[in-house]
Amino acid sequence: MNSDVFAATPEPPYYAVVFSSARTEGDKGYAVMAERMDALAREQPGYLGIESARGADGFGITVSYWESLEAIAAWRSNAEHQVAQENGKRIWYGHFELRIARVERAYGMIQKDRATN
Amino acid sequence: MNSDVFAATPEPPYYAVVFSSARTEGDKGYAVMAERMDALAREQPGYLGIESARGADGFGITVSYWESLEAIAAWRSNAEHQVAQENGKRIWYGHFELRIARVERAYGMIQKDRATN
Repeated sequence: MNSDVFAATPEPPYYAVVFSSARTEGDKGYAVMAERMDALAREQPGYLGIESARGADGFGITVSYWESLEAIAAWRSNAEHQVAQENGKRIWYGHFELRIARVERAYGMIQKDRATN
Repeated sequence: MNSDVFAATPEPPYYAVVFSSARTEGDKGYAVMAERMDALAREQPGYLGIESARGADGFGITVSYWESLEAIAAWRSNAEHQVAQENGKRIWYGHFELRIARVERAYGMIQKDRATN
């Protein structure tokens, strides 16, 4: 697995947007949009990283990390992102929940015999 | 999809534990442990809900929601959970990152034609 699937976030505090979603059936332009939004997010001021997983049942969690609430608000109001948000509500997601949270503590572990692979 | 995959959390503030992980290869008792920990977590004081997704590449995100930092600390020090944590480090996870965050805002959407299904 590529270790880039983990976000290399700084020491807390910072902010997380936890986006849990159930995909509707069929792609309907979703994959192209998701790749574009991922690339666009990385260009935004205050962006710290993103992690995303979706199971075969269509339920997924994407967590993006940000320096501040202001950075999150700016990304939310990005014009191209707003179009994607509207299409998400109409087309791609049957249900989603979005939570904005302040990360207060963080730690992790990489197995030694894997860290050098 | 079962709507139970979404956590029915209360109005913020509350706390989230965002656990991002890369699974090692092979089950090695993981599925049984994961189901047991899910059931055990639900019995803990201050537990609010859990959401989890893992892709075919082995990268997954589990977010559990809690009333307080004290509830999270108590769950972390649960004896049976501590055994699972140790086995997680030795056996099941090649890499994990854990972040504890205070949820400050939340909103969601269910498509109307799906809400009645």
